[in-house]
Amino acid sequence: MKLYGGIETGGTKCVCMIAGGPDEVIAESRFSTTTPEETLLKAITFFREQKKIHNLSGLGIGTFGPVDLDPDSATFGYITTTPKPGWANVNLAKRIENELQMPTVIDTDVNAAAMGEYLWGNAGGISPFVYFTIGTGIGMGGLFNGSLMHGLIHPEAGHMILKRDPITDPYAGFCAYHGDCFEGLASGPAIRARWGQSSHTMPDQHPAWKLEANYIAQAMVNTIVLLSPRKIILGGGVMQREHLFPMIQREVVSMLNGYVKSPQILNQIEDFIVPAKLGGRAGVLGSIALAVQAFN
Amino acid sequence: MKLYGGIETGGTKCVCMIAGGPDEVIAESRFSTTTPEETLLKAITFFREQKKIHNLSGLGIGTFGPVDLDPDSATFGYITTTPKPGWANVNLAKRIENELQMPTVIDTDVNAAAMGEYLWGNAGGISPFVYFTIGTGIGMGGLFNGSLMHGLIHPEAGHMILKRDPITDPYAGFCAYHGDCFEGLASGPAIRARWGQSSHTMPDQHPAWKLEANYIAQAMVNTIVLLSPRKIILGGGVMQREHLFPMIQREVVSMLNGYVKSPQILNQIEDFIVPAKLGGRAGVLGSIALAVQAFN
Repeated sequence: MKLYGGIETGGTKCVCMIAGGPDEVIAESRFSTTTPEETLLKAITFFREQKKIHNLSGLGIGTFGPVDLDPDSATFGYITTTPKPGWANVNLAKRIENELQMPTVIDTDVNAAAMGEYLWGNAGGISPFVYFTIGTGIGMGGLFNGSLMHGLIHPEAGHMILKRDPITDPYAGFCAYHGDCFEGLASGPAIRARWGQSSHTMPDQHPAWKLEANYIAQAMVNTIVLLSPRKIILGGGVMQREHLFPMIQREVVSMLNGYVKSPQILNQIEDFIVPAKLGGRAGVLGSIALAVQAFN
Repeated sequence: MKLYGGIETGGTKCVCMIAGGPDEVIAESRFSTTTPEETLLKAITFFREQKKIHNLSGLGIGTFGPVDLDPDSATFGYITTTPKPGWANVNLAKRIENELQMPTVIDTDVNAAAMGEYLWGNAGGISPFVYFTIGTGIGMGGLFNGSLMHGLIHPEAGHMILKRDPITDPYAGFCAYHGDCFEGLASGPAIRARWGQSSHTMPDQHPAWKLEANYIAQAMVNTIVLLSPRKIILGGGVMQREHLFPMIQREVVSMLNGYVKSPQILNQIEDFIVPAKLGGRAGVLGSIALAVQAFN
């Protein structure tokens, strides 16, 4: 069995893993994301130790962003602009690659999670497909023609413009850039700010969920008409509230109103908009998946 | 020089062409789109005559939709559901291929136009890129990793959900399916219904344009955050009003508000959102381009 290293550099925690796949996890280490120096040192130390024991075929990095993914750029693999103190303009990929002398691949945490679901999860090798994480922030990754979505930069679909009725929802949104974009309206912090309660503890009957399902459904409709994905996977903390799935599925069908004549939408919406399979390990297993895809 | 056939089957007119590219047009025929029988007979007759004179390497069809583009489907190449009388469930691709005994490729008119701009126009071989036509309807086509965008069906981005302020714009939109979606708010018929004037004759100073630029800019922002295209081309009848381009470009930069840190957006937006080069011949030259891409 080939083994790979994976790092998920998240906004609050960092997870390192040695694995061949989701059922072949050899070692794991979790620690808080602090300064870049301290955090990278911990990660590099972990992999140096593991390299003494295992033959590793490559390393995948799934990181919070925005990250420079242009291979021709002088700052390829750098975190670019982030409000996270100390992390702007940090050389992530080349630094790790040089320190460990291992072939390294980097992508956004959501593209990594998408690759994990593509290889081992609920996307099952289908593309185009997209993965949304709806939690502290909202992010999107995905594959098109079997390759991860890269372009001018990478998807940032948490910042999609949606329709808000100020009478039904006077909350103006919390996004520092856009106010009431998708993330500003429907992320975990938006739910907490609007209702004074956490999305984790709010009862299923709370009116918050109808509004939440409406915003997520709007975003799914826009994703469907722009990208025509064959599958949409929804993960992240907010989506742990499973009662949201049928609410979102019904709203999407209702909003599309028969326009997209596809059996997957008209008759099998419950197989079209689905939860993530890899769950809480999506990020780090996704990083392993990046390495598998790149170096297998 | 290799020669190809191209057919643009539009909602009101049909254009047939023999060409090797935009500067090598050998023959052209235009006629009204009437019944499928009459229209297809005219097209087939044109190509039969041309085949006697020229050696044709293949035929491209760019059609109004929705169209079944799933190669595994029993109704591949059929127009599926269209409000256009007589055209629902019409076998387009296989019928033409069988009658003419020529290799045939079919796609949406907007994907065809996108391929034309990709090979010969303002996309210049860049992908991902998208092409929007904003006219009688609003459609989108595009390429990702060098291939046309296909998925569950194909993009139908005219039906994107946008934000409308009912105080600034009380017009509820004309889309039969969605009311105030992008097409319902910003297509030519929407402009005419809202203001009682045609977009072709309305003066540059008319307040209609500020609203129009706002809706188009919203759609561009959503396209940017979902797809991260390297280029956006805007064509169609409404976009013949060239004063719209700087208005849209400014609005996009303002709405993104510095979030997408790309020089193409921050400093070169006039090279990022651009007009179509092939103009009025985009559809039929796009159909030629489909054939070039498939059979060269």
